[in-house]
Amino acid sequence: MANTIEFYFDFSSPYGYFASFKVDSLAKKFGRTAIWKPILIGAAFRQTGAKPLADIPIKGDYCRHDWQRMSTHMEVPWVLPDPFPIAAIAPGRVYYWLSDQNMELAKQYANDVYKAYFADGRNISEPDIAVEIAANLGADRDDTHQALQDESVKQRFTAETNTAIELGVFGSPFIVVDGEGFWGSDRMWMIKKKLQQSKW
Amino acid sequence: MANTIEFYFDFSSPYGYFASFKVDSLAKKFGRTAIWKPILIGAAFRQTGAKPLADIPIKGDYCRHDWQRMSTHMEVPWVLPDPFPIAAIAPGRVYYWLSDQNMELAKQYANDVYKAYFADGRNISEPDIAVEIAANLGADRDDTHQALQDESVKQRFTAETNTAIELGVFGSPFIVVDGEGFWGSDRMWMIKKKLQQSKW
Repeated sequence: MANTIEFYFDFSSPYGYFASFKVDSLAKKFGRTAIWKPILIGAAFRQTGAKPLADIPIKGDYCRHDWQRMSTHMEVPWVLPDPFPIAAIAPGRVYYWLSDQNMELAKQYANDVYKAYFADGRNISEPDIAVEIAANLGADRDDTHQALQDESVKQRFTAETNTAIELGVFGSPFIVVDGEGFWGSDRMWMIKKKLQQSKW
Repeated sequence: MANTIEFYFDFSSPYGYFASFKVDSLAKKFGRTAIWKPILIGAAFRQTGAKPLADIPIKGDYCRHDWQRMSTHMEVPWVLPDPFPIAAIAPGRVYYWLSDQNMELAKQYANDVYKAYFADGRNISEPDIAVEIAANLGADRDDTHQALQDESVKQRFTAETNTAIELGVFGSPFIVVDGEGFWGSDRMWMIKKKLQQSKW
C-alpha cells in the first residue's frame, strides 16, 4: 500500500475530463495523493477491439448527449471539440517531461490541457498549442518544443501507456487504488468505499 | 410524460441483474412504475460492433472482478454462470407471454429468472428451465411450453428488441425516463435527478 492512487486518462477522453475534477479531492480526503498518468488509450483499444465512442453507431449519439448532461450536472464547462477524438501525443509528452521536473506543475498543465480541449475547443494535439499551454505556466517555450522531439521523452510516454495496459488499464478514466482498478467516471462511490476500508 | 419508466435489460447481463434490484424502488419513490423490457442485446451489439464483455481481452478480467465486488457492495448473491453469456431467448418469450396476462407476475418471473441464472447458476436459456421457473409461479407448464413455440410470441420478443434498438438502446441495463436514456447500473444517481426534476 502506498499513499498514492493512480489516475490513468487520455487527454482526448470526455469521461477522463469529467473525472479530473474529482480525483484530487477524493484522494486528499483519505490522505492520499493522486498521480496523474496520461496515456494513449488507442493503444489499449487495439488490444480490446474497442473503438472511439463518438464513432460507434447509436452509442455515439448517446455519448454526445451524455457528455452535455454530465457537464450540466457537474457544473463544469463543456464543448464537443472539433476535431474529436484526437491522438493526444504532444500534451502527453509535455506532461511527462514536466512531471520529472515538477509534479504539481505537470498536474496543473494536465488540467489546463483538458480545459483547452473540452472547455475552449482548442486542438491540443497540435504541438504549438501543447507548448503554448506549458509556456503559459512558465515553462520555456523552446525547451518545451525540444522536449516534444526528445527520444527519451517519446519513449517515456510510450512506456507509460504500455505499462498501464499491462496493469489492466483498458479505458479512460481508470483509477487504481492499491492495485485494484476502477473504470469510469461513475465509479467514484466505489473508490471512496475502497479508500475508507484501507488503513493508510 | 407518462407515469412509467422503461427498464431494458438482457437476462444474460450481469449489470442488468444488479440494476434489477434497484429499478422498482427508484421508480416507486417518484410515483412511477418501471416497465420491464427484456431484449436480446446481441441484436444491438451487431449494430454497434460490441462484443460480450467476458470475451474481451483485459476488459473481460476486469468485469469478472467487478461483478464479484458489485455483489459484495450490494449484498446480493452472485455466481458467474456456466455457460455465460447465453442467448436468453426462452425466458424472454415466456416473459412477454406472461406480461400480456399479468404484468406483476411477469415481473416476478423476470426476477426469478435473474436469480436462477446469477444466484443459482442455472442455464436459463434451456426451455425446460425457463418453463419451470414460470410453473413455480403458477403458470401452466404445458401452456408455457406451447407459448415458447408460438409464432406471435416469438415475433413479439423480436419486435420488442428491434423497437428498443430503434429507440437508441445499445446496452444492458438501459433505463428510459420520458424519452431520455440512461445506460448502465451506475447511473441511478442521474435517473434520480431526472425523476426529481420531472413533475409527474
